[in-house]
Amino acid sequence: MKIYVIGIGLIGGSMALELKELFRDCYVVGVDQSETHLEEALALGIIDEKGSLETLGEADRVILSIPVKESLRLLPTLLDQLNDEALLWDVGSTKEQLCKGVENHSKRDQYLAAHPIAGTEFSGPKAAHLGLFKGKPQILCEAKKTRADLLIWSKTTFRQMGMYLRFMEPKEHDRHMACVSHLSHVSSFMLGKTVLEQEADEQNIFDLAGSGFESTVRLAKSSPDMWAPIFEQNKENVLEILSAYIKNLEDFKNKLAADAIDDLHQQMKHTNQLKTILNGIKHNN
Amino acid sequence: MKIYVIGIGLIGGSMALELKELFRDCYVVGVDQSETHLEEALALGIIDEKGSLETLGEADRVILSIPVKESLRLLPTLLDQLNDEALLWDVGSTKEQLCKGVENHSKRDQYLAAHPIAGTEFSGPKAAHLGLFKGKPQILCEAKKTRADLLIWSKTTFRQMGMYLRFMEPKEHDRHMACVSHLSHVSSFMLGKTVLEQEADEQNIFDLAGSGFESTVRLAKSSPDMWAPIFEQNKENVLEILSAYIKNLEDFKNKLAADAIDDLHQQMKHTNQLKTILNGIKHNN
Repeated sequence: MKIYVIGIGLIGGSMALELKELFRDCYVVGVDQSETHLEEALALGIIDEKGSLETLGEADRVILSIPVKESLRLLPTLLDQLNDEALLWDVGSTKEQLCKGVENHSKRDQYLAAHPIAGTEFSGPKAAHLGLFKGKPQILCEAKKTRADLLIWSKTTFRQMGMYLRFMEPKEHDRHMACVSHLSHVSSFMLGKTVLEQEADEQNIFDLAGSGFESTVRLAKSSPDMWAPIFEQNKENVLEILSAYIKNLEDFKNKLAADAIDDLHQQMKHTNQLKTILNGIKHNN
Repeated sequence: MKIYVIGIGLIGGSMALELKELFRDCYVVGVDQSETHLEEALALGIIDEKGSLETLGEADRVILSIPVKESLRLLPTLLDQLNDEALLWDVGSTKEQLCKGVENHSKRDQYLAAHPIAGTEFSGPKAAHLGLFKGKPQILCEAKKTRADLLIWSKTTFRQMGMYLRFMEPKEHDRHMACVSHLSHVSSFMLGKTVLEQEADEQNIFDLAGSGFESTVRLAKSSPDMWAPIFEQNKENVLEILSAYIKNLEDFKNKLAADAIDDLHQQMKHTNQLKTILNGIKHNN
């Protein structure tokens, strides 16, 4: 089985490692704009060969894991090149525009829109590792538009990687992600920016980071190349949730200014229920 | 050596454990409003005895680790009760009002305002553990106002716990903490509130939390009993930094609405420098 991985980063690289683990006959061809990433991926045994998109027709499986703006641009022409038995997954963080862009493509049924909810603030092939997806959700969008045999293979394979499956429409997916993921990234980037502006002394940032800053700012280490296009593609949803967030912050500010400490206490107490939600929910696969 | 720990939570409890480890003759008396906490602390060997403030005169060392509003109220009368050789540390997150409240106290020199930058989102004696302070900064405020012998003993003891020392004036401390710690908590609580309001389906929050939410919302699990009084006491500084944060979020929103994606990319790239700051700085003890 010949697998092309387009974009050998954390997600693409980890997917390659999982597929090599699952399928003995798996031969991975890596395609990436960065020669450094390709060399690293070769050295780490993540890919078997550096390749190019020109020979994509020989691929049995294709994983598209590049910034979402590029995916949107490339996806139709990549599908054009697929042979009739091939399957392409993308693993990007936005889905509405991407699915819309290929809705009338003759090979739409050889494409599966997937979003593994796994990742760290690290990127590049060195960050890739086996086990990244274990116990994590894999979100599939418009799964019914994928050809039955290719969908079954995909579902089985994701489950073998230890993932559990969730099904969403692209619109719904993007709205949920704006809320639960994209807002967190905006919040973290702007928190980092604010502290850098207000704290001239870097030693203070370092010494005091353990008092909360370190965890809220973790996502501000993320790659702008990956995130700028996500915000762009999910603009309407991000603007909406960001407005709601700013409104809550303004409300907190006004209550604090008015010494309405009991109100703030109540809000915090209410928000504490996240503890239960994040610890306790069981899911059915 | 008889040590009174007033407030047997994460910090007070961990301090007690460290002192027991360092001093063989250490006998710890616990004082807490919560009978459950006292029983837990006894069972866990954090304290040797449940006590009350009435016998505080017999203490050699006192650790005050209760919500800052209570500290502010209690500190003068606690100092009144100290015998002439005793020393009292508080370990709270705000210092300006506290130090001001005892500036003319006859036993001011038996008090040391300390703030260990260590902690987790967990609280209570069960969260206490040896090693919590290892490698962490201990901030001392107005250290010169503490009697020389008591200050030397404190500095040595903190270093033996593995901490490194930083010295700040109370005003400066509170301003820095607003920026690097308190803002993170407001940000996290309001992020959690926003997501709870917008995401009716708790299963979605759980499934998608790994995509960023989990780390930005960690602090929203913190205790409102501890945090409401911190915000109250550090009101002016928190309001100022919160306004700067909201301004940055508004700016991000406006740029996104105007499709100024390159500007956003640049902001994120600039903020990425936090990676270096948080990884790389060396400190002198």
